Amino acid sequence: MPDHTYKIIDLVGSSSESIEDAINGALGRASETISHLDWFQVKEIRGTVSDGHVGWYQVTLGVGFQVLKPGDVHREA
Amino acid sequence: MPDHTYKIIDLVGSSSESIEDAINGALGRASETISHLDWFQVKEIRGTVSDGHVGWYQVTLGVGFQVLKPGDVHREA
Amino acid sequence: MPDHTYKIIDLVGSSSESIEDAINGALGRASETISHLDWFQVKEIRGTVSDGHVGWYQVTLGVGFQVLKPGDVHREA
Amino acid sequence: MPDHTYKIIDLVGSSSESIEDAINGALGRASETISHLDWFQVKEIRGTVSDGHVGWYQVTLGVGFQVLKPGDVHREA
Amino acid sequence: MPDHTYKIIDLVGSSSESIEDAINGALGRASETISHLDWFQVKEIRGTVSDGHVGWYQVTLGVGFQVLKPGDVHREA
Amino acid sequence: MPDHTYKIIDLVGSSSESIEDAINGALGRASETISHLDWFQVKEIRGTVSDGHVGWYQVTLGVGFQVLKPGDVHREA
Amino acid sequence: MPDHTYKIIDLVGSSSESIEDAINGALGRASETISHLDWFQVKEIRGTVSDGHVGWYQVTLGVGFQVLKPGDVHREA
Amino acid sequence: MPDHTYKIIDLVGSSSESIEDAINGALGRASETISHLDWFQVKEIRGTVSDGHVGWYQVTLGVGFQVLKPGDVHREA
Amino acid sequence: MPDHTYKIIDLVGSSSESIEDAINGALGRASETISHLDWFQVKEIRGTVSDGHVGWYQVTLGVGFQVLKPGDVHREA
Amino acid sequence: MPDHTYKIIDLVGSSSESIEDAINGALGRASETISHLDWFQVKEIRGTVSDGHVGWYQVTLGVGFQVLKPGDVHREA
Amino acid sequence: MPDHTYKIIDLVGSSSESIEDAINGALGRASETISHLDWFQVKEIRGTVSDGHVGWYQVTLGVGFQVLKPGDVHREA
Amino acid sequence: MPDHTYKIIDLVGSSSESIEDAINGALGRASETISHLDWFQVKEIRGTVSDGHVGWYQVTLGVGFQVLKPGDVHREA
Repeated sequence: MPDHTYKIIDLVGSSSESIEDAINGALGRASETISHLDWFQVKEIRGTVSDGHVGWYQVTLGVGFQVLKPGDVHREA
Repeated sequence: MPDHTYKIIDLVGSSSESIEDAINGALGRASETISHLDWFQVKEIRGTVSDGHVGWYQVTLGVGFQVLKPGDVHREA
Repeated sequence: MPDHTYKIIDLVGSSSESIEDAINGALGRASETISHLDWFQVKEIRGTVSDGHVGWYQVTLGVGFQVLKPGDVHREA
Repeated sequence: MPDHTYKIIDLVGSSSESIEDAINGALGRASETISHLDWFQVKEIRGTVSDGHVGWYQVTLGVGFQVLKPGDVHREA
Repeated sequence: MPDHTYKIIDLVGSSSESIEDAINGALGRASETISHLDWFQVKEIRGTVSDGHVGWYQVTLGVGFQVLKPGDVHREA
Repeated sequence: MPDHTYKIIDLVGSSSESIEDAINGALGRASETISHLDWFQVKEIRGTVSDGHVGWYQVTLGVGFQVLKPGDVHREA
Repeated sequence: MPDHTYKIIDLVGSSSESIEDAINGALGRASETISHLDWFQVKEIRGTVSDGHVGWYQVTLGVGFQVLKPGDVHREA
Repeated sequence: MPDHTYKIIDLVGSSSESIEDAINGALGRASETISHLDWFQVKEIRGTVSDGHVGWYQVTLGVGFQVLKPGDVHREA
Repeated sequence: MPDHTYKIIDLVGSSSESIEDAINGALGRASETISHLDWFQVKEIRGTVSDGHVGWYQVTLGVGFQVLKPGDVHREA
Repeated sequence: MPDHTYKIIDLVGSSSESIEDAINGALGRASETISHLDWFQVKEIRGTVSDGHVGWYQVTLGVGFQVLKPGDVHREA
Repeated sequence: MPDHTYKIIDLVGSSSESIEDAINGALGRASETISHLDWFQVKEIRGTVSDGHVGWYQVTLGVGFQVLKPGDVHREA
Repeated sequence: MPDHTYKIIDLVGSSSESIEDAINGALGRASETISHLDWFQVKEIRGTVSDGHVGWYQVTLGVGFQVLKPGDVHREA
């Protein structure tokens, strides 16, 4: 059984609704060009303020996926 | 175009419902005396436990806003 | 008034719905054998990806509770 | 029951005697204008050296207190 | 000579007097059920404020001890 | 000789020219209302990008000054 | 499908041979009483020095396993 | 209004002159293939020494830009 | 002599044998499409557990290489 | 007025009595060969356990002093 | 080809002009007694405030150089 | 029984073979002039890449030893 290599890219998802929506937004965007995303890790939660409440949640994620073939190392999101 | 200075204050919002509510609670409280809040960053998420589930979410935020005039450096929240 | 000692154990709660659900799941599981949980702190938020959105949120918590009697130092969750 | 908001300010207490004295010095100073301080966290312990022993202990604290009314967000120490 | 395994548990000691008392309180409590504690590391120093000075020092420790037999891995404090 | 208490506030200075200018801008703004600033520490260096080079340097500083009288604990910048 | 809860315990493995041996030693010891260990994370690598080379490698691990039933929260290693 | 996704890539700029030059060098290089860079954050400042002074400043940056279309997730610098 | 720009990508190598094998596996995979890799930094060592010993070592690396021409900023691994 | 250079060395002081004693012990030892120590910073507090209470406090310090002449760069403690 | 050993010493350079000057000042001082300095890493940027702008930049560096012969391990700066 | 003082120096060992070899190389070099090294801690693991695999492992260590007499504070490695 061969050893695997994974790649981690950093994305920032945004949402005016919730932290979970911001995460899912970034994952959805990344999955349009990378079909086999494996896991994510939240690196930072920040956002903008508008009229005294959250305008946009901005969640920075590291997103990991397996490098299946050499060309996959060019996959970015 | 003049250079700007911003100030960051640390607040802890609390909510029995969700992390997002705790963030919005702190931002709402701060906006009562500072009208031009710009951004926030989550520094810590903790809370109390009651009857086997979350009692209160306690979310520590750094909240940033522009120092528009000298007196604004006394603005705290 | 005697000085108190507290114990902190690390748990990972999981949920397909939300970060809050993952936290409450871990706290609920721990409360089945420890009735007097006091507080928690979020140490890490990560998860799995499935079909371009979050499969499972996995939230690592430190959970604290008071050591009421010697045997309590064996309480783990 | 309303959700609470807390404010954290950073102070540095100093003492030629002990770390505990430095902490109490900063808390005492802050309590002259803020009566309802709640908790503190030690962020850094450093100091000066004089004649081969400690001259002054300098202990950086985050000090938290509840924002009871809008004006309290201007309370600084 | 066999290789050893050690276990680290996290405890929070408290004292109204000093940081050292808080550390010793947690170690004393743990030693009631674990006789062979080896070392500790201070992870956090915080506390409560009462009447403008420290109410309780709360010191979080990692405490290490050797796993002498399988059953020792259940030793918690 | 009495023990001193210091206060640290967080400011973000900005400049289109250099990191040093951003630091001096924040210190200059703060000194308009606090005459006795003592020291600063750089906490973060970031900025905006415009046309392929730096638009604004944004430097987050902790700025320390001595609390000379109770009212000084309200000094913010 | 129910949500899972995991527990993380901290162990220090030691070996005079290699970092990998130290990790395997701690995992082997833990598996004597916990059959379903899932993953580990290296938190610290240190050791002793003897005659100008490594005496013992001491590797601190967080080791995770699923809490299958209430009693499992008492599993420690 | 749709939610946005951003991508962060890590670059190291170098300059024999100044930290600012090293930052601008990396941003200039990246802007040759990505026209809409938004922000950067300094992650590390290091360098080489030559004849008793700095040879090259080497500044590690995280550089962020908006993912405008699926193909943009392949943009790297 | 022109200033250089480098790019850092994050990879996770895996091996059932050793930490060194996991590192070499990721570097070997990356070198299939990028011939001029320069350096690496270990960011995390973790792994899976199988039958009481390490199943897979998973080592997260930052891998750096020089951006020789604009197209190289699209090189990912 | 010339620019100054300082040197920082890392020492571990130990005491069976208190954290302050451990700090003073290390500073006293260092001052036997370096007369102009300026400041210290606490980097770690740990210790040994003996009979259920602290055996030795071990406090790691960074200690700074000015490099007055070239030979001073060889001063270590 | 033999394996090399390097030594890292911590220095603080100061300058009233710029961060770069502070770095070069420390490197210049160190090079008076160590001719083969290799690299540096910035660990902290802080300074004093005078009349509302920077008095002295104080930049803490780790400076590395190769240990060419046993006596070199006594080289400090 | 007198209190002890220890000194920690930072070394970087290198090896083309393994992380353990790099550690032992630095310890062996240091032991040529300091006979009583006590312990080490790994602070960083990095290296160079050559032909798609590791060229040199470079492991940064803090190495501790007891200061037995004043002159020992000049011992560096």
